[in-house]
Amino acid sequence: MSNPFFKNKGPFLITDILNILNIKTEPVKTNVSIIDIKDLYSSNNSEITFLHSKKYKDLAQKTKASFCITTESLKNELPTSCIPLIVKNVLVSVSKITSMFYPDAINDDFDDSAIDINQTNFKDKVISGKNVLIGKNVSIGKNCSIGHNTIIEKNVSIENNCSIGSNTIIRNSLISNNVKVLDNCVIGKHGFGFFPDKNKNLRYPHIGIVIIEENCEIGCGSTIDRGSMSNTVIGKNTYLDNQIHIAHNVKIGENSIIAGQVGIAGSSIIGSNVKIGGQAGISGHIKVGNNVEIGGGSGVIKNIPDNSKVMGYPAKNIREFLRDNK
Amino acid sequence: MSNPFFKNKGPFLITDILNILNIKTEPVKTNVSIIDIKDLYSSNNSEITFLHSKKYKDLAQKTKASFCITTESLKNELPTSCIPLIVKNVLVSVSKITSMFYPDAINDDFDDSAIDINQTNFKDKVISGKNVLIGKNVSIGKNCSIGHNTIIEKNVSIENNCSIGSNTIIRNSLISNNVKVLDNCVIGKHGFGFFPDKNKNLRYPHIGIVIIEENCEIGCGSTIDRGSMSNTVIGKNTYLDNQIHIAHNVKIGENSIIAGQVGIAGSSIIGSNVKIGGQAGISGHIKVGNNVEIGGGSGVIKNIPDNSKVMGYPAKNIREFLRDNK
Amino acid sequence: MSNPFFKNKGPFLITDILNILNIKTEPVKTNVSIIDIKDLYSSNNSEITFLHSKKYKDLAQKTKASFCITTESLKNELPTSCIPLIVKNVLVSVSKITSMFYPDAINDDFDDSAIDINQTNFKDKVISGKNVLIGKNVSIGKNCSIGHNTIIEKNVSIENNCSIGSNTIIRNSLISNNVKVLDNCVIGKHGFGFFPDKNKNLRYPHIGIVIIEENCEIGCGSTIDRGSMSNTVIGKNTYLDNQIHIAHNVKIGENSIIAGQVGIAGSSIIGSNVKIGGQAGISGHIKVGNNVEIGGGSGVIKNIPDNSKVMGYPAKNIREFLRDNK
Repeated sequence: MSNPFFKNKGPFLITDILNILNIKTEPVKTNVSIIDIKDLYSSNNSEITFLHSKKYKDLAQKTKASFCITTESLKNELPTSCIPLIVKNVLVSVSKITSMFYPDAINDDFDDSAIDINQTNFKDKVISGKNVLIGKNVSIGKNCSIGHNTIIEKNVSIENNCSIGSNTIIRNSLISNNVKVLDNCVIGKHGFGFFPDKNKNLRYPHIGIVIIEENCEIGCGSTIDRGSMSNTVIGKNTYLDNQIHIAHNVKIGENSIIAGQVGIAGSSIIGSNVKIGGQAGISGHIKVGNNVEIGGGSGVIKNIPDNSKVMGYPAKNIREFLRDNK
Repeated sequence: MSNPFFKNKGPFLITDILNILNIKTEPVKTNVSIIDIKDLYSSNNSEITFLHSKKYKDLAQKTKASFCITTESLKNELPTSCIPLIVKNVLVSVSKITSMFYPDAINDDFDDSAIDINQTNFKDKVISGKNVLIGKNVSIGKNCSIGHNTIIEKNVSIENNCSIGSNTIIRNSLISNNVKVLDNCVIGKHGFGFFPDKNKNLRYPHIGIVIIEENCEIGCGSTIDRGSMSNTVIGKNTYLDNQIHIAHNVKIGENSIIAGQVGIAGSSIIGSNVKIGGQAGISGHIKVGNNVEIGGGSGVIKNIPDNSKVMGYPAKNIREFLRDNK
Repeated sequence: MSNPFFKNKGPFLITDILNILNIKTEPVKTNVSIIDIKDLYSSNNSEITFLHSKKYKDLAQKTKASFCITTESLKNELPTSCIPLIVKNVLVSVSKITSMFYPDAINDDFDDSAIDINQTNFKDKVISGKNVLIGKNVSIGKNCSIGHNTIIEKNVSIENNCSIGSNTIIRNSLISNNVKVLDNCVIGKHGFGFFPDKNKNLRYPHIGIVIIEENCEIGCGSTIDRGSMSNTVIGKNTYLDNQIHIAHNVKIGENSIIAGQVGIAGSSIIGSNVKIGGQAGISGHIKVGNNVEIGGGSGVIKNIPDNSKVMGYPAKNIREFLRDNK
């Protein structure tokens, strides 16, 4: 994925990477520089990639990466040009190395670089409330307003004619033209992603961002987490009501309408022209088609094809739901 | 409805109104002034009204309005004193004309007129935290406290002995005696009401307000939207727990108890002495009677008569629910 | 329970207590001092206790309290050393007397003693944002950061290496080492506990606190209420996602993972290594065992034994749920 915001702190020497992974037996003779960590498909020479499942063996065979974090049982799927680095838990190791390259993507402490908007160039350009703070690497277009106590933390681009409410916090996000974000929202924080571990869970880095396309509206008290390895996207002219939670990597299409207190779990993909009733929940890694209507309170735990109307927990065809519940 | 807050920007000439509605064939000879837009029942001479459904034909026949936004097929329901203005979509047209008369009711950008309470007359009268902001047209009674970073935006009346928490935002609301509003609430913003339209949804104006009657308590992180054509009302001595969402036009009776994370969709009417368990949801345009108990997690999708106990999704008699789920 | 924060305003003369309880017939000859109000088990000589149910008759017979608030029908369960004070509603009376001893535990108005962190000794010790406020009786350890507009109200202890987000409010809480609390949370406010009463509900005091143990993370927009007579506890290394509501007296074990928009009602006890899916709800006074998995959207209305996987509303064995919903 393209990454407009998180700075790559590499290159790192392969010996430093081996140290982090606690790999003692030296798999290399010369100490080369590693530029970046990417997936099997995107990675190139002098980069490191990872393989954690047989599902990806076709991609593995074509990878151009110089090194691959993998397991003993998967190492033979790699081409000879790619040196395997054998670990016990591939994803935990990937997390560690990604954190090495992108340390800013794992630390979500508040942005202490943010300063009062009146000390910035936006002072005369943006209609702003009291106590508005602006972080580094922020751009704001024409004819925008930002409410009281709102914090535009680092790595935010806001286009033209946008209205941001009060007490809202945004970071690592692209906000397109004519978007309204109402009060008390938090947008662009890391998702709820980590490796469970007794005593101290291990957070993995979120190098994705949040993209809110043109003409969207985000209701009060909503939270939209940024993606881990891809972006979280709210499509053009989609409206979210109050107290909605959109988890990391979720993608919502255009012209969709999502009522209050809906929650969409990580990595689910929602189509265009979708209507979701209040308090409905969508499980993670689900695909909801275009022109779908999901009744209020539904719990969607499997994919929904285009043009369906569903309701219930678990959600089923709405006629069936109403018949079963006469 | 009475409208204490939104200023009528009329009168407007009928020709200006016809322009907005894109009506070319002049239905009038002289260019008269129109004072206001109201419903069929309330409107008078020199005012404009609307008729979008045969359901209202009895009211239509008695309307005193000079003009009525309606369709070709409904125009014959009007008295001869009322000139029909023929449009394709009545409600969209009403929205446009209401926005013309009440432009302040459609723009919910943050209130940039709000100033620090220490620069107002409330300075010595109200116990206030740091960074408390007060908009125009605000009144506050005796013995009130307002927490840190709270924003009382324009058009708010707070009576006596009220306690408002920190980080809370209120606008277009009447708060009666002895009310407590806790932290991080947003009260009085427009509801989730608009006409879906590809590329750019059309918001309709919300000229209603929020009324919170005596002795109520509103929990942390709750949102209460103001009404569109009527008010949103929380009755006397009703308590709301945390993270509750009350949509536009909802009316809740007295002495009701609503537990955490409940959501009530638009225009529903809840009786008095009603108990609603945590995370329950009430669909829009539902009527819940007095003395009703709704179990936690229920989804109410049809009216509930007085004195009932219901549970389930969809909610049914609680005995039936427990029997079916043994 | 130990009470590190709420100050006991006693002792009070027994005649003053009788006055509050509206007891006319003098049960005592001499006017003794009462030091504290406690439960049957913990109370001692010169203290007052209460007995409101036959369930506790064994404890009652051994109480060392000098006085006991109870009813006519229960008074004979007490030893002769304990003088019964007969009232109609024991719990309401207890609430009144607890409020007398611990008035600070009933008033949850904003903390107007809080001052800017730059006016405190924490100025150089804590990495803090703009407009951070600190109340009385607050301690903060090494290497902590506190985000913009966050209010650490009175009675908060934060240990080392903690990261508190922006726009968050904390009071009456112990935050252990390495805890992260994200943005827009409210932690330590009183729970949703009161005696319903027409015209004006009667709040009871919450003398419990919130304890968040080591290595926890609390997601954006979450609310955690403090306990009434016991504490609310989040166990070591437990992670909460966004928009979660934890009611008063809830105890959650270690290494648990709770997804977005979950709600746990008052006094429920959740084990260790528990996973709760998004939007699930747990009723009050429920016991969920260790190593339990609760599917997203579930409604748990009865106890769940160790090592179970449940789903549904009401929640049942997950295999049964999936079979019934094929």
